[in-house]
Amino acid sequence: MSHDFKFDWQRAHRTGVPEVVLAEHKSTEQLLAIASQSIEQQFPLFMTRVNAEKAHALQSTLAGYINYHSESCTVFVGQHPLGTMVGDQTGWDENIRAYRQPDNAPLRSNREVPVAVVAGGTSDVPVVAEIEQSLLYLGKRSDRYVDVGVAGLWRLTDIAEKLTQYRLIIAVAGMEGALFSVLAGLVQAPVIAVPVSVGYGVAQGGHAALHSALSSCAPGIAVVNVDNGFGAAALAVKILDA
Amino acid sequence: MSHDFKFDWQRAHRTGVPEVVLAEHKSTEQLLAIASQSIEQQFPLFMTRVNAEKAHALQSTLAGYINYHSESCTVFVGQHPLGTMVGDQTGWDENIRAYRQPDNAPLRSNREVPVAVVAGGTSDVPVVAEIEQSLLYLGKRSDRYVDVGVAGLWRLTDIAEKLTQYRLIIAVAGMEGALFSVLAGLVQAPVIAVPVSVGYGVAQGGHAALHSALSSCAPGIAVVNVDNGFGAAALAVKILDA
Amino acid sequence: MSHDFKFDWQRAHRTGVPEVVLAEHKSTEQLLAIASQSIEQQFPLFMTRVNAEKAHALQSTLAGYINYHSESCTVFVGQHPLGTMVGDQTGWDENIRAYRQPDNAPLRSNREVPVAVVAGGTSDVPVVAEIEQSLLYLGKRSDRYVDVGVAGLWRLTDIAEKLTQYRLIIAVAGMEGALFSVLAGLVQAPVIAVPVSVGYGVAQGGHAALHSALSSCAPGIAVVNVDNGFGAAALAVKILDA
Amino acid sequence: MSHDFKFDWQRAHRTGVPEVVLAEHKSTEQLLAIASQSIEQQFPLFMTRVNAEKAHALQSTLAGYINYHSESCTVFVGQHPLGTMVGDQTGWDENIRAYRQPDNAPLRSNREVPVAVVAGGTSDVPVVAEIEQSLLYLGKRSDRYVDVGVAGLWRLTDIAEKLTQYRLIIAVAGMEGALFSVLAGLVQAPVIAVPVSVGYGVAQGGHAALHSALSSCAPGIAVVNVDNGFGAAALAVKILDA
Amino acid sequence: MSHDFKFDWQRAHRTGVPEVVLAEHKSTEQLLAIASQSIEQQFPLFMTRVNAEKAHALQSTLAGYINYHSESCTVFVGQHPLGTMVGDQTGWDENIRAYRQPDNAPLRSNREVPVAVVAGGTSDVPVVAEIEQSLLYLGKRSDRYVDVGVAGLWRLTDIAEKLTQYRLIIAVAGMEGALFSVLAGLVQAPVIAVPVSVGYGVAQGGHAALHSALSSCAPGIAVVNVDNGFGAAALAVKILDA
Amino acid sequence: MSHDFKFDWQRAHRTGVPEVVLAEHKSTEQLLAIASQSIEQQFPLFMTRVNAEKAHALQSTLAGYINYHSESCTVFVGQHPLGTMVGDQTGWDENIRAYRQPDNAPLRSNREVPVAVVAGGTSDVPVVAEIEQSLLYLGKRSDRYVDVGVAGLWRLTDIAEKLTQYRLIIAVAGMEGALFSVLAGLVQAPVIAVPVSVGYGVAQGGHAALHSALSSCAPGIAVVNVDNGFGAAALAVKILDA
Amino acid sequence: MSHDFKFDWQRAHRTGVPEVVLAEHKSTEQLLAIASQSIEQQFPLFMTRVNAEKAHALQSTLAGYINYHSESCTVFVGQHPLGTMVGDQTGWDENIRAYRQPDNAPLRSNREVPVAVVAGGTSDVPVVAEIEQSLLYLGKRSDRYVDVGVAGLWRLTDIAEKLTQYRLIIAVAGMEGALFSVLAGLVQAPVIAVPVSVGYGVAQGGHAALHSALSSCAPGIAVVNVDNGFGAAALAVKILDA
Amino acid sequence: MSHDFKFDWQRAHRTGVPEVVLAEHKSTEQLLAIASQSIEQQFPLFMTRVNAEKAHALQSTLAGYINYHSESCTVFVGQHPLGTMVGDQTGWDENIRAYRQPDNAPLRSNREVPVAVVAGGTSDVPVVAEIEQSLLYLGKRSDRYVDVGVAGLWRLTDIAEKLTQYRLIIAVAGMEGALFSVLAGLVQAPVIAVPVSVGYGVAQGGHAALHSALSSCAPGIAVVNVDNGFGAAALAVKILDA
Repeated sequence: MSHDFKFDWQRAHRTGVPEVVLAEHKSTEQLLAIASQSIEQQFPLFMTRVNAEKAHALQSTLAGYINYHSESCTVFVGQHPLGTMVGDQTGWDENIRAYRQPDNAPLRSNREVPVAVVAGGTSDVPVVAEIEQSLLYLGKRSDRYVDVGVAGLWRLTDIAEKLTQYRLIIAVAGMEGALFSVLAGLVQAPVIAVPVSVGYGVAQGGHAALHSALSSCAPGIAVVNVDNGFGAAALAVKILDA
Repeated sequence: MSHDFKFDWQRAHRTGVPEVVLAEHKSTEQLLAIASQSIEQQFPLFMTRVNAEKAHALQSTLAGYINYHSESCTVFVGQHPLGTMVGDQTGWDENIRAYRQPDNAPLRSNREVPVAVVAGGTSDVPVVAEIEQSLLYLGKRSDRYVDVGVAGLWRLTDIAEKLTQYRLIIAVAGMEGALFSVLAGLVQAPVIAVPVSVGYGVAQGGHAALHSALSSCAPGIAVVNVDNGFGAAALAVKILDA
Repeated sequence: MSHDFKFDWQRAHRTGVPEVVLAEHKSTEQLLAIASQSIEQQFPLFMTRVNAEKAHALQSTLAGYINYHSESCTVFVGQHPLGTMVGDQTGWDENIRAYRQPDNAPLRSNREVPVAVVAGGTSDVPVVAEIEQSLLYLGKRSDRYVDVGVAGLWRLTDIAEKLTQYRLIIAVAGMEGALFSVLAGLVQAPVIAVPVSVGYGVAQGGHAALHSALSSCAPGIAVVNVDNGFGAAALAVKILDA
Repeated sequence: MSHDFKFDWQRAHRTGVPEVVLAEHKSTEQLLAIASQSIEQQFPLFMTRVNAEKAHALQSTLAGYINYHSESCTVFVGQHPLGTMVGDQTGWDENIRAYRQPDNAPLRSNREVPVAVVAGGTSDVPVVAEIEQSLLYLGKRSDRYVDVGVAGLWRLTDIAEKLTQYRLIIAVAGMEGALFSVLAGLVQAPVIAVPVSVGYGVAQGGHAALHSALSSCAPGIAVVNVDNGFGAAALAVKILDA
Repeated sequence: MSHDFKFDWQRAHRTGVPEVVLAEHKSTEQLLAIASQSIEQQFPLFMTRVNAEKAHALQSTLAGYINYHSESCTVFVGQHPLGTMVGDQTGWDENIRAYRQPDNAPLRSNREVPVAVVAGGTSDVPVVAEIEQSLLYLGKRSDRYVDVGVAGLWRLTDIAEKLTQYRLIIAVAGMEGALFSVLAGLVQAPVIAVPVSVGYGVAQGGHAALHSALSSCAPGIAVVNVDNGFGAAALAVKILDA
Repeated sequence: MSHDFKFDWQRAHRTGVPEVVLAEHKSTEQLLAIASQSIEQQFPLFMTRVNAEKAHALQSTLAGYINYHSESCTVFVGQHPLGTMVGDQTGWDENIRAYRQPDNAPLRSNREVPVAVVAGGTSDVPVVAEIEQSLLYLGKRSDRYVDVGVAGLWRLTDIAEKLTQYRLIIAVAGMEGALFSVLAGLVQAPVIAVPVSVGYGVAQGGHAALHSALSSCAPGIAVVNVDNGFGAAALAVKILDA
Repeated sequence: MSHDFKFDWQRAHRTGVPEVVLAEHKSTEQLLAIASQSIEQQFPLFMTRVNAEKAHALQSTLAGYINYHSESCTVFVGQHPLGTMVGDQTGWDENIRAYRQPDNAPLRSNREVPVAVVAGGTSDVPVVAEIEQSLLYLGKRSDRYVDVGVAGLWRLTDIAEKLTQYRLIIAVAGMEGALFSVLAGLVQAPVIAVPVSVGYGVAQGGHAALHSALSSCAPGIAVVNVDNGFGAAALAVKILDA
Repeated sequence: MSHDFKFDWQRAHRTGVPEVVLAEHKSTEQLLAIASQSIEQQFPLFMTRVNAEKAHALQSTLAGYINYHSESCTVFVGQHPLGTMVGDQTGWDENIRAYRQPDNAPLRSNREVPVAVVAGGTSDVPVVAEIEQSLLYLGKRSDRYVDVGVAGLWRLTDIAEKLTQYRLIIAVAGMEGALFSVLAGLVQAPVIAVPVSVGYGVAQGGHAALHSALSSCAPGIAVVNVDNGFGAAALAVKILDA
């Protein structure tokens, strides 16, 4: 049988980041064919933007190989980075939560956890989760700081000292994206800005946040496309390994 | 001789704000006719967006009645609000500067000076000046705080305490306009946001700053059109008199 | 259990307006967690853009604490501003309606009811209702004037005299938003313009109305984002308290 | 010699409106060639958007055949509609002004002067003038009402009664274009809306006014392109002759 | 009971066109209240953009008064212009079809049927139908010519002679809207252009067709908003009565 | 019975490409009427953008005449180009697949298979399929090369030699559309670029890919509208027959 | 001396079209360095979008090697395709004009002159000229048909018969670009659409014409970027050689 | 004397990158005041987007302190990073050129020269130069590779091996920006994409290149605003020091 896909298996070797599958515009049939080949070749695979319906079709056909993480809409095909093959969704969510840093815990070494993912509001959590899962897949650890939007500046200044100790910050924000500029003015680490399609009126589609990130008065912000959690994680890995 | 303008002399009485002349799209001939009628009727008049060439034409034809303020590109026709008829540009600039509040001076009562004009950067000064001249024309005093952009957050937090004592803040910013959200999260006073057409790329024309102001996560920001210094001043007067 | 939200409980003290929850992009699970914390801490909470499905999930889990107002898609969590804990939707709607001003009634003092909410058409009512509920939550009373679009100018001039007696006008309009300019030319009070995403073709998404509000030839209009009823109410409160 | 133009001399016969020359994007050489052919064939010709430099080149080369009207940037080539061949600019302007209706004069029959050209502000005058010259060229008379923007509604309601007696209204406005809706709600005559590229920020290029005209809540407005004075006049003639 | 609508019953008298109800953004409850008042006051009413669900709710509550025309998504409330109160959908559709002009029939007098509705393709039929129903409601007759897009120019030139005999043409087209220019170059009658939201890619939302209509090289086209069938009909009536 | 369509049966003779039916905006009733007429006149017909629901309605009413190809959402009405009247969907898909070129097969003569369809990713397959079906309908053969996006450049350079032997390349890509420029720099054959509406954020709707195609630094790219598979095929046929 | 350019001398061999220099964004210094290298290597070179100032700098420094064609703003460096090294601008223009086809001449064989360049109006001539010079440089002949816009349809139908005999049509139009669709519906030859940045209001920048070309109802139009005369010529050559 | 600027002298300490002056929207008077303060405080300063006129004003007033680099439009105020105070423009340009890497030289260690600046074409050189000067000011060395656009892919693959040895790539491209994706698919190093405002039609303003960068199918690209050379350099420094 001929295939309509040609996997770039050497990409990790060549560019430091393996090819992943953007599931959004692919049919369930296409995703099944791709996942099957991955399993056949014993090559672990990561998929993003997998909705519940497609995930369940994958799980029922390829039971035992599909780890679906619903908060982030991502799928691991094959051996999981946390070391176990997790078929049970609940357990999986527990495992993920386990490695999150409580806010008042002492900061682990930034060699161990080099990345802080900082988000303006609760609505940004799906993108935050895609970043975390992508980093995990790419072998990096991160801490999560959510709901620190600049309208309540104390929430951000409270953690400013902590944030200066990470090697890299990934900032996630919708609406007007003022978080990007304020953060970038406070730390030495590079800031990756991920605009989020949260908002309405002129903020619809995340364009106001995107434009804020690009035209920030604080220099040195690395911008990725709206909602592009995986792209931010891939860039983070490249920067950490530069 | 018939005229192509019909001045709304009753507007101040009806709406609290007199009609002013937006000179940008009017010819020198039209401006001369309007100013002459104003002088004839002994009705003081305010013009905005008057470039140097038009201003000089007005000054040479209607000498003694035209006060041009070059930093703000505004013209007072007739008796000046500061109490003197000032034909000399230099003296005029001095007078204006005289009522500015040095940063380290004790704050005057917010009944006396109810408005703070806060700007992100030096490039915003022409719009700041239009706001100040407009407020002056409309009978209100203001203090100026420039170059307090959020990339150096300390510049803003240094004056945060002071700013809480004004009845009203007019915030002026181009680029990504993060200043609007941060300011509005720090004070009780209403914040009027004036986006400025400073910037390039996606910030061209002030649209990124405008969209930031409109979609701010800090509620209660009153937005006016890009570069609309007079509009901000008129709104300020209406709010102070509400 | 760690949380993905960090409520800015001091915001009311700091800025005069408490933090509210924009429910649109939040999951039911997130809303339940937020509401539960609010109840636990006996801190009343206001939510906007709550659709029927999410509202019912809240009501069935946290029965007795959730007041859903369907016309405005808002939720009060906890003690209601009108003085009673209202679990019954019908009764609640009655209560709200009770404080509306019939058109031909004598005008109450503008200290008692300082705000008039004026809308162009029946399609704007959901945004009008969000404004009213928000004002109520923030402790201000308002009167409602709907369907006074400028295509039938008499509907507006009929109430012009009445409108001059409010301290503040909130104007609500979709389509071309001509209402904003006409209103602002008739009254001394500040006018807050709320563009509405009603319309099609070039008016799609409320952008034509937004641009009309921003570029009005009548100075002194305070503009908020499209459909931003809560933002208008928050600004109104700040202006009334300035 | 071959030509790069092919005049549609039959257009007036076929569509009721002769072809005119849009000079803006044509070189002086092209305009000279076109005007020369027109004179050779004794076929009168009308040109719009002729700047001063091109006009003077035409006048110096084809002296006696070129009537330039500077306020409207239009040129008549050949016999003038007012009955005389006018080479003298001043006299020409006088003649044009002569047929303008003073505001307080009794209304002439709407058979004699069927069109009212109504403009929001003084800045709209160049477009108003292009409309008047185009109507004149096409054989129709008009009256001019300028500076009746809705911010001072009395200026419009003062003339509302008069306006109801014209067969057709051409409304000219920049900024937010609220004039279109208000006018169309007051009269039975069809209203042609001509948005004008006067304004800044979101009104730049006349797009806010254009969108207002298209999405007006007052039905029955005929919209033409921004600044398209000749198009409005051509449409007017077709409507009057329908 | 107070109402959130204030019908402009005098509009027909004042402007020649009665107020109609744009149902798209109104709730079923609002439509029922409006229709009930209309029936109570024995004032016939016309509604556009009524989807099937809302129409059936109206029909089941106000049986006998609601004439729904599904092809155009319009509703007549009360006595029908064709002279009968038609509750039966099928019969109604028959009646409408009856007055359509077969292509090869001799042309009726343009006093009797003054308007031709000309559409580029079959996909434009819903807008064509809204125009026809609106004209019928406003007392004018029309003939329908569909699928005469310029890609097969013979389809248009075949009927060109016929079209020259109408007093007015309403042209309806999506995609690139080339029909508008070609038509306007062939006839003396005014052409009203109705862009349609048919198309994809750059034609999405009807904007390509709208811009074609506005920037046509054939002067004298009257443009209305995308899909605005009623607006075109209202303008037609005003033109025919000018 | 009168019809709302007027088929341009002579179009193939006149322009080399027969008229086809864009089903997207047509109702099932309209499609049935069109297909019936086609069958009646024994004129084969091709439809694009037919969703499953409409296809099934056609199949159940006109059984035996409707060949639906689900991957491409196209319908052949009547005798199929592959020589058989295929009512069975599965068999049909087999037939189509049969003529696809395995990647490692020796290249057939470019007279036999003159077109290569080259796509960036698996998500582009529906548009690829529309192109293939359209070419088939128009009598041309093609080979398919999918998933050769430039992020893994070797996938493209691997087949570069092969591609130089086709007379024409149709390139299909969403996201940023870099494929167009790279391909056009490698081959002599004309490249037709088909941007695809695959992507999110700034790539939403295919506009980023469209703009890349139009502004490519590699000259000689022929661009068609986003997702316009049939248009690309029609252009290909015209080029091959030029 | 190192250079900031790396000429792709093999491009003609590889893709059929040599690299040319887009002079618009290059400094005079850069153009001089590039032209000098070309002369040194005896490699003829073509430049587009050379304004008069840059052209004169080239001519004065590299006298005898620079053939500037002012109507098209193009430069040939080195031996001219017409067989002579022409330093004299006037003579050059004569030579170019000489190969133009008078409208009433018998059509030469389409092997000899395979391309017709058809433009809507006189304002499109600079782009027409860039196409002609580019074709000449690439070794193809063309005939010019200007001012055949669809507003006077007879101008186009008059030459329709003639046009059917070319192998390829390049259509050039600004404003609404209706010419593209009408032309493509009349001929079998592929049509290359070149939108032109002629127009104002919604037609500003050529976007209305571009969108018309892309969304044409006549299939098989090849679109290039706005004003991209060279791109159209390069595509034409590739098509003719396919 | 009070100042309208408040320099953020601590920014380098806090964020790793000192504040620089964007001169574009500042008046000569403002630049002089800023530069004077810098000299007074013996604090070196860097300015970008300084046009020739402003540079000369600075040089004539503050002779001996101003190093203007015309290719990049940047100014160093005070002691130059290359170790000498260079007032002579020619010498300065020589010095800069001296540290450029000839294409065929052996690659220096990527510790010594960690950054490659890779540009698509000669027109991108001004932005390339701003990047180089900014890196120099911030203490990093770079090599320049210009004119390696993907239309001639060999120019890029020729240097691909070399490029893999840098720690970081800054890619600079206008038009369609395909360079970003191809580069990012070839190297492990992070790629910073700088879209350039070179292009016309849909590429005007650099938006096509910007959107390509953001929606690249090659993950891990860090995007900055159009023409933002300094921003790219600042980000590079932060990444190298992460």
